[in-house]
Amino acid sequence: MVGIGDDAAAVETGALSLITTDSLVEGVHFRRSWGSDALLGRKALSVNLSDIDAMGGQPRYATVSLCLPSETPLAFVDGLYDGLLQRGGEAGVQIVGGNLSRTHDAIVVDVALIGQADTILPRNGARPGHVALVTGTLGAATLGVRLLDEGKRLGAPSGGAGGAHEERCIRAQLDPAPPLGFGRAAAQAGLAHAAIDLSDGLSGDLLTVCQESGAAAWVDAAAVPIDAAAKAIEEGRGGDPLALALHGGEDYQLLLAAPPEAVTRLRQLAARLKVALTVIGGFSEGEPALSLRGGAADTPLVPRSHEHFGGG
Amino acid sequence: MVGIGDDAAAVETGALSLITTDSLVEGVHFRRSWGSDALLGRKALSVNLSDIDAMGGQPRYATVSLCLPSETPLAFVDGLYDGLLQRGGEAGVQIVGGNLSRTHDAIVVDVALIGQADTILPRNGARPGHVALVTGTLGAATLGVRLLDEGKRLGAPSGGAGGAHEERCIRAQLDPAPPLGFGRAAAQAGLAHAAIDLSDGLSGDLLTVCQESGAAAWVDAAAVPIDAAAKAIEEGRGGDPLALALHGGEDYQLLLAAPPEAVTRLRQLAARLKVALTVIGGFSEGEPALSLRGGAADTPLVPRSHEHFGGG
Repeated sequence: MVGIGDDAAAVETGALSLITTDSLVEGVHFRRSWGSDALLGRKALSVNLSDIDAMGGQPRYATVSLCLPSETPLAFVDGLYDGLLQRGGEAGVQIVGGNLSRTHDAIVVDVALIGQADTILPRNGARPGHVALVTGTLGAATLGVRLLDEGKRLGAPSGGAGGAHEERCIRAQLDPAPPLGFGRAAAQAGLAHAAIDLSDGLSGDLLTVCQESGAAAWVDAAAVPIDAAAKAIEEGRGGDPLALALHGGEDYQLLLAAPPEAVTRLRQLAARLKVALTVIGGFSEGEPALSLRGGAADTPLVPRSHEHFGGG
Repeated sequence: MVGIGDDAAAVETGALSLITTDSLVEGVHFRRSWGSDALLGRKALSVNLSDIDAMGGQPRYATVSLCLPSETPLAFVDGLYDGLLQRGGEAGVQIVGGNLSRTHDAIVVDVALIGQADTILPRNGARPGHVALVTGTLGAATLGVRLLDEGKRLGAPSGGAGGAHEERCIRAQLDPAPPLGFGRAAAQAGLAHAAIDLSDGLSGDLLTVCQESGAAAWVDAAAVPIDAAAKAIEEGRGGDPLALALHGGEDYQLLLAAPPEAVTRLRQLAARLKVALTVIGGFSEGEPALSLRGGAADTPLVPRSHEHFGGG
């Protein structure tokens, strides 16, 4: 009703609102040289959209708080807002307010996002006997950071099939595409009982669900939906694609817990929303801990911290 | 209903919500050596409380996004949250979510605040013939920054009456006290038609109301409620206390526009809420511009930018 420019924005809400906030910090989460300012704007909103979807909500309104060094060109703000508004349009989100502060060093883009919800999908609803499911594929975003650090850019990858794989991984990092609407649909249909968005990495985020829910979980190594492009590149480098998919962060896919009898209907829902959905394991009685099934015996699965720039 | 620790916080809201966001950046808005981390937490919330009150709303829920250099001691976060929670308790605000990012340089404390409103108090409701009113006193917060830059601190001011004046100004800077509830009460009673919180300074913020409302405004020089402590210090230094009150920022008082016939009831409301209220001028037909009444003739009043650290 009253938008940008007043002391606060006034917006219509329902009885239950969701609120989340997430920041992108230059030199920690992004470098300006990695891609366009518009892609950065898209990502600043997408990482918050992912949180609202993981709660079963419908994203509605965003505020944007920018901290900019005084030498930042105005074109940066233009480009950033192009991306924010474009992504907002795709997701049905209005950018209703903002704040601009000067800083001395790094750019900080902080978005707060308000959503509405009827049925919420918490992190603590996983129960022994539930299956664990993930949407999409995993590992591409982390490989994308590595490629960017090596100087690769969108539109200028190596040629051939390798080039297409690089392009896909870089795009996964710069322009994450959470399965918007799937969390909400699964919550409203009563099919999922817990969800978290995969920002830190499958292992760390699954352990969080275990800790919140008071359950253990296992992951079937053969079932993890490793991104095909990331797998091809990582194998070519002699690396371990499974580790990338288990521990790499920023895929912004959903991890869900659901009773086994809900899986068929979840698959139908996923097919209707054009979302890939994979059963990757399940929850069991026990202390919050993870194990990996695949060899002769289960092995403990210990989350590795997801670190962008390698430093402490 | 679901608080800190999930993907998003789920909270009860009404039909109309207000959203605002504001950041405090180390080296721009504060230095850690100025005062306790708890006072910083209080201020980070207070500057947002002020925005919600200036819209006629009731503050309800806040999220806190922190960007911290990796060497930041944990005690900083503890202290900051002590202040946030204390101030939240005073204002009826729950801290429902947060986000922590690493940064390489300055601390950034970004708060997003959700409020509820029935009647909103926009910036664009001032009309020719309305009077302009301000709450509280002006100028102390800006003088407080100067004292802090000179090395003065709370609890260690110069002795005597001068010391008490310094203490008051430093506190105005470190722990601003917006007249919470007054904007909401004035809006609900239908007595004020426009409001803005005084963050940039009276001249700049009054001009903003003029620009949004399509009106001119005049200020009676003799009526401006210059803070007595700030006046005593500034006069002792041979400065101009009126300029301090006209152009100094961060007082976080309210500027309101109201029909003349509402003034008596506004004064009664202010007395009940223990808020000082002063008619400082009025709005007139004309292009958005300010004039100062006081001498033989009106003189143009041109806002001066409020700059913390003097630099560009």
